Order: sequence, then C-alpha cells, then structure tokens
Amino acid sequence: MNKQPIGFLDSGVGGLTVVKEALRQLPHEDIVFIGDQARLPYGPRPAQQVQAFTWQLTRFLLKQNIKMLVFACNTATADALEIIKPQLQIPVVGVILPGARAAIKATKNRRIGVIATEGTIKSAAYQQAIQRRDPQLQVLSLAVPKFVTLVESGQYNRPIARKIVAEMLQPFVGSGIDTLILGCTHYPLLRPLIQDFLGPEVQLIDSGAEAVSEVSVLLDYFEITNQNLAHHGQAHFYTTASPKMFDQIASDWLDLRDLKAQQVNVTQEE
Amino acid sequence: MNKQPIGFLDSGVGGLTVVKEALRQLPHEDIVFIGDQARLPYGPRPAQQVQAFTWQLTRFLLKQNIKMLVFACNTATADALEIIKPQLQIPVVGVILPGARAAIKATKNRRIGVIATEGTIKSAAYQQAIQRRDPQLQVLSLAVPKFVTLVESGQYNRPIARKIVAEMLQPFVGSGIDTLILGCTHYPLLRPLIQDFLGPEVQLIDSGAEAVSEVSVLLDYFEITNQNLAHHGQAHFYTTASPKMFDQIASDWLDLRDLKAQQVNVTQEE
Repeated sequence: MNKQPIGFLDSGVGGLTVVKEALRQLPHEDIVFIGDQARLPYGPRPAQQVQAFTWQLTRFLLKQNIKMLVFACNTATADALEIIKPQLQIPVVGVILPGARAAIKATKNRRIGVIATEGTIKSAAYQQAIQRRDPQLQVLSLAVPKFVTLVESGQYNRPIARKIVAEMLQPFVGSGIDTLILGCTHYPLLRPLIQDFLGPEVQLIDSGAEAVSEVSVLLDYFEITNQNLAHHGQAHFYTTASPKMFDQIASDWLDLRDLKAQQVNVTQEE
Repeated sequence: MNKQPIGFLDSGVGGLTVVKEALRQLPHEDIVFIGDQARLPYGPRPAQQVQAFTWQLTRFLLKQNIKMLVFACNTATADALEIIKPQLQIPVVGVILPGARAAIKATKNRRIGVIATEGTIKSAAYQQAIQRRDPQLQVLSLAVPKFVTLVESGQYNRPIARKIVAEMLQPFVGSGIDTLILGCTHYPLLRPLIQDFLGPEVQLIDSGAEAVSEVSVLLDYFEITNQNLAHHGQAHFYTTASPKMFDQIASDWLDLRDLKAQQVNVTQEE
C-alpha cells in the first residue's frame, strides 16, 4: 500500500541496533536513518538542546517523505518525544514505552533495573512509564554514561569493555533484579558482556527491538505497510559527521557490506 | 488520563476470553462487554448480515462512551472491521492481525495452521494477513464450526468435547504445522484438549490475548490509558439473550462471583 520509507533518528550509531531489528522484522519496508554523530553524545546535554537537535533530525527525515518516525534513541525519546509527536501528521514511536511494557511483562519478582544515559535517567522516563502502570513495581535506575563512548569508539568488543561493564554495573550486584532494561540503543552491542556479568537469571530487555514490534503494530493499525512483497527493503544511512567510522561500525553490526552513509548538515537551514 | 471504558463486542460469550486477558494485563481499565447471544453463531451467516449486527453492537457500545473498541470476535473482525473502523473516531482493534503477527513470530518451520468458523475461513482473512507479510509461509486453514456450539452450550469440559476436538482436528495429523492459531475467541476454552490432541510441539496462538497486547500499545500510543492507579477496573457485561447461561459460563471463565449480565435489545432503534 504505502511505499514511503520509515524514518529512524539517533544521536549516533546506536540506533542501528533498532534498524537491524527492523530489517529483520519488516523485510519489505524501506528505511532512512540519520545519526547525529557530529554532536553525540546526547546523554549529558540539557533537555532543551536535545529537543532542538531532535527537531533538526526530524525535519531532515520529513523531507525524505517518511510515513512513520522512530526515535531510535532513548535520550531523544525522554526529552523530545512528547513535544514533537503531537506536532507531526505521521505516527511517531519512541523506545521507552515499548521497553517499559516488555519489562513489566517479563519480571517475575517485580524488581526491574534500568541502565541508560544521564539524560534518560534524569528524566525518570522509564521509572514513570513503569510505575504509572503499576506503582508496586520496584525500579532501580543507573546512569552508565561510559557505555556510549565505548560503543561509538568501536571498542565494544575489546578487553577494556568487559572491565568497564563490570565496574559500572557493580551497583546491581545483590540488588535482586530479575529484569534489566537496556535503556540506550547503544547497549545491545554490549549485551554479551552485560549478560555475562549479571548472570543468566537476569533477563535483558532491548528497548529498540521492542520498539520495532510497536512499529509493526502501528503499520498495520494505520494500514501503511508496504504490500509489495517482491520489494526487498532498502536502507539509506545519513550521518552528520564523517561517514568513515559510521560505515565501519554499521557494517560490523548490520552485516551489510556495501553500506555507504552520506554526510549531511542538518543545521544549514536553521 | 482517560477514564472512559474500553468496549468489547462478540457474537456470544467467547469474547470473554479476551476480556479475561484484558482484566489481567490492564487492571486499571474499565470494560464494557456485549455478547450477541440471541443471534449466535455468526460463523455461518453471510458477511453483510454480520456487518449489520456488528454495527448494532458498535452503536450500543458507543453510547456507553467507550474510548476504544475491540472486536473480540474473529468473524466480526473478518467481515466488518475494515468497514466500521474508518467510520469511527476512536481506535478499533480486531483479533486477526495480532494473531497473524504472533504466529509469524512463533513459527520455526514456516507452517502455520488456522482453525476458525466457516465465516472467518471463507474470508481467508488469516491467510491474507500472514501471506501479505511473507508469501513464503504455508498456511493450512480449517473450519471447525462445532467448537463454538460446544463452548456456548457449556459442554467444553465434558467427555464429548475431547471426542469432537479429535474428530475435527484430524486433518492436521501429519501436516507438520508447528503453530496453530486459535482463530475464534471461543477456542481458548478448548485449549487443553487441543494441545493434548496435537501434542506439545505445536504452539497455540490465542488471537484474543494477542489483541490485548495491541490494545495496550494503542492506549499508550494515543495517550488514553487510565492513569488513576488507585482505580480497580470495573467490567460491565451485556447480552442480547437471557443473562442466566451468560452469567454461569462467564463466572466459570472469569472467576468473578458477582458477575451480573444485563439483557439489552440492540435492534430496538433500527
């Protein structure tokens, strides 16, 4: 029916974990992704600045004629979704509510951990999303800012990563959580290390993957799926910084060999 | 935020399996249910008649000031959802797409079975919903009309039920399906017998339970959840026939002792 692409925005390359899931779950959909690598990380920035940057990325994607917009970034979701969503004519999906819903469904002992950037943790968006549904649930939130730079610098599979993961997650030892929300789209890259450190009894929730399930529900609900089944979804990638490292990390993550990101300046029309 | 109830409609009492799931997943939401027991089963009726009846039930629920409408009936979903949904101002959810999505996610060997009423099978709604997403998936559909009367007559836990289940599901023996959609909201009552007959390697998909997950996504998406967490959701039940058998079956299924259905005439204003 609707052949327009789905837009994904992120502060950097972390949102590609969401794109990877979208390519798997929605093989006939075209995708446009923009990562704001020139200005990452968003986590430590004031909310107003995150809102301004997210608007710029949104306007760029709207020019690509998208039919749906996904905030593939927890910080952007926490700070800007509620402001931007009501002003657009197309459906807008963030990563926080899908992650919160999945955690509520998963926990058995009613103790949920959340790791995210400082910005997301300060916003208390996960805690609110969870406890607005059930105030009896315990939520243990922790900012782990170092994880983003670990991933963006391509060191997520080096020995230093294991050391930093152990250091940062120390507060969860003995906390009794049985579910941990990976509240930043960069963190799935560290998933094996996080799972190793916390042990197999803690269930990890990938908010990005959950968001794609919501995208799938809404594509159906608004009847805007691409129904041309002969079509293999194409993905186009844009970055605000040099495409070189983007291409390298993105190729590693997505197993796409010919991935060629284009550099764009989203501030030029401001 | 939004304290209006969610409306559920069904041809009879089968939709109560969906209500039961809604009470579990959405404990703060009020619910209004109407079952058209006076005119069940819908399965063998022509599509136009199902549409007319479903409009009557819809109008009754709209008068109850509902904020969302759930077609807790596969036949009504197959025949009337696409006609009624675009004409309402509130979100409308059916049971077929959620069931189809869950089956696609669940199947490993890519062979999915569907059991439903004649009406639903004739509409080919499940097959379309599945193969519109992935034409490589095999779908084996079977009408099992006797199951509805088995449930509505309260015989679903009598020995005769086991015999009829074995008889009707015979065509699936040796079919190699690894996933079976219970494509009628009455069938979850027969779930233990169906699972016994097909064996543990076949995964059963309860379309109604999946629809409630979609309701949950849309309540969040449209920001119409009831955020008064001190409120325990109330359910009101209406039937177009005598409330006596309704109350008995409903009490058995829902474990609600004081359930008192009211009889209404939905045709009076036609």
